[in-house]
Amino acid sequence: MSATKAYAAQSATTPLAPFDFSRREPGVHDVQIEILYCGVCHSDIHQVRNEWGGSTYPMVPGHEIVGRITKVGDHVKKFKVGDLAGVGCFVDSCRVCDNCKEGLEQYCETGMVGTYNSNEKDGTATQGGYSTLIVVDEQYTLKISDKLPLERVAPLLCAGITTYSPLKHVGVKKGDRVAVLGLGGLGHMAVKFAVSFGAEVTMLSSSPSKKADAEKLGAHHFALTSDKETMKGLQNHFDVILNTVSAQHDYSVYLDLLRTNGTMIVVGVPPSPSQVPAFSLIAKRRSIIGSLIGGIKETQEMLDYCAEYNISSEVEVIPIQQINEAYERMIKGDVRYRFVIDIASLKK
Amino acid sequence: MSATKAYAAQSATTPLAPFDFSRREPGVHDVQIEILYCGVCHSDIHQVRNEWGGSTYPMVPGHEIVGRITKVGDHVKKFKVGDLAGVGCFVDSCRVCDNCKEGLEQYCETGMVGTYNSNEKDGTATQGGYSTLIVVDEQYTLKISDKLPLERVAPLLCAGITTYSPLKHVGVKKGDRVAVLGLGGLGHMAVKFAVSFGAEVTMLSSSPSKKADAEKLGAHHFALTSDKETMKGLQNHFDVILNTVSAQHDYSVYLDLLRTNGTMIVVGVPPSPSQVPAFSLIAKRRSIIGSLIGGIKETQEMLDYCAEYNISSEVEVIPIQQINEAYERMIKGDVRYRFVIDIASLKK
Repeated sequence: MSATKAYAAQSATTPLAPFDFSRREPGVHDVQIEILYCGVCHSDIHQVRNEWGGSTYPMVPGHEIVGRITKVGDHVKKFKVGDLAGVGCFVDSCRVCDNCKEGLEQYCETGMVGTYNSNEKDGTATQGGYSTLIVVDEQYTLKISDKLPLERVAPLLCAGITTYSPLKHVGVKKGDRVAVLGLGGLGHMAVKFAVSFGAEVTMLSSSPSKKADAEKLGAHHFALTSDKETMKGLQNHFDVILNTVSAQHDYSVYLDLLRTNGTMIVVGVPPSPSQVPAFSLIAKRRSIIGSLIGGIKETQEMLDYCAEYNISSEVEVIPIQQINEAYERMIKGDVRYRFVIDIASLKK
Repeated sequence: MSATKAYAAQSATTPLAPFDFSRREPGVHDVQIEILYCGVCHSDIHQVRNEWGGSTYPMVPGHEIVGRITKVGDHVKKFKVGDLAGVGCFVDSCRVCDNCKEGLEQYCETGMVGTYNSNEKDGTATQGGYSTLIVVDEQYTLKISDKLPLERVAPLLCAGITTYSPLKHVGVKKGDRVAVLGLGGLGHMAVKFAVSFGAEVTMLSSSPSKKADAEKLGAHHFALTSDKETMKGLQNHFDVILNTVSAQHDYSVYLDLLRTNGTMIVVGVPPSPSQVPAFSLIAKRRSIIGSLIGGIKETQEMLDYCAEYNISSEVEVIPIQQINEAYERMIKGDVRYRFVIDIASLKK
């Protein structure tokens, strides 16, 4: 067993605080990773505060993990000690269902094993990346290039793949008109990916203050969703809308912006169901599709793509001691665009 | 001008009653069709009673038209006098937008010209198939085989293409698990098409009385939507659900029946928007897509397919004099599965 320092929540209502625990020794297929950076995802807050129900404590959050291999099991083939490695939102799955066999482990029919707030197959609670060490089967571990700053790579493991995967799935290509709704951790990656795929990208936002940032990220256009004339001019305009908003909102306003055969991708989960008028869908053969992170194979493809095309997240690096304050700032939308914990701060 | 006998509504609140008017002489690209049968679509009732707004009167409804060519314009190439012919939901469109050029005239960017309750490009009100004659550009006229009983072919022009087109669009194939929600004019055609494409077809209905009929139509399974255990057993089960219901209902119950990458096709328009929980979509990369009838090319493909595979609608043939009673029975769901008017009754 390896002593591990971490920050954990002891209940839904207590702040994150220092927590020591032990990680298993690597099994024959496992790698042990010394964590260097861990991104802070909004779903960390939801789970820490038990906003989705079913949370278990103590909980060490974090599923945007980048680090360096420090031990490998006897049968490990992909990694050697000293390699860079990443871990995303899950660390295991059934491996035998159709989805697992197709590389869609995120849709595993018996449920993936989450990187934290979940249980390994032997029942051990999983603990995430706000910690100094993690031990993961090599099949669920990603290779990380040294071409990009590691702190900017960490958010690719969740925010990156969550937006890359559906844009690829719906086939976004050169010349397509793509709108990104909501400019946060997910939205800013969506803009970067859509631009890099050759799309004509419009940022849709309710906040005029996001305009300059959207342009800096590469968006070709900015449209204020509160401006009725602008929205009217964008009716039947987009091939794809990537909707990252998790606040309550009415889908119908945005569906009408899609042209014939257009698709709205939903990656945010508003607290209550959204209204969908059938006629908006029928009138132009429009569709709505949901998408959840991505499988291991596609996550590796995305990481390799980012290394090749120099794509990474905009981050604000913080020491772990500022995590509770960071959560409060995230809730106010005050982060551009991802907090990333420098795990060196845990070792002090 | 050609004298035409018809049944028309004079207002949203008066019953349909005899109405005489004139059709134009065929232009160089037009055909004149002596109407033999016209199907009765639920949208006829919605428009007659102005339930969708914007109805104009007098209104001769009917867009499931089958008849015989009696005159052709000088430049007509596809038809000669004596040929069988069909007319569906539209009789013209802009012909120059991307959708029209791709054979998706139903999504014409400036709006298709409806077979009735619409206006020709010269402003003339269009009048539908509850009439003895119709004059239509040959490009918007379908060829009808003599292999099938004509009264059973008429409903293919709307109910048929409305279900054929999306099943083809989403790629239903041999072995796919397809559910049809709602067994009416649309649903009964959906079952027939899905079965003929080789799918394993389940009829989902709230009415146990539909079971025997569903089986007669070829459905392999029947599931009662009010039976909680049955519905639980069908979670993550279907590749495609074709939702034909236009009564108010909650999509989420049915979305959960879709397996990973499954699609719910929506062809019914409930009076108010339906609830869609994002998580249901995201958890399994499920999608919802709308679909509106079909273009001319695909409608012809469908008609040819039906002639080849002996597919036609289940109908109850009525004289036009019973149309108002038929509407009342349709509202109660008391028709198996399409009323078709024998237009000979108009000539008496």
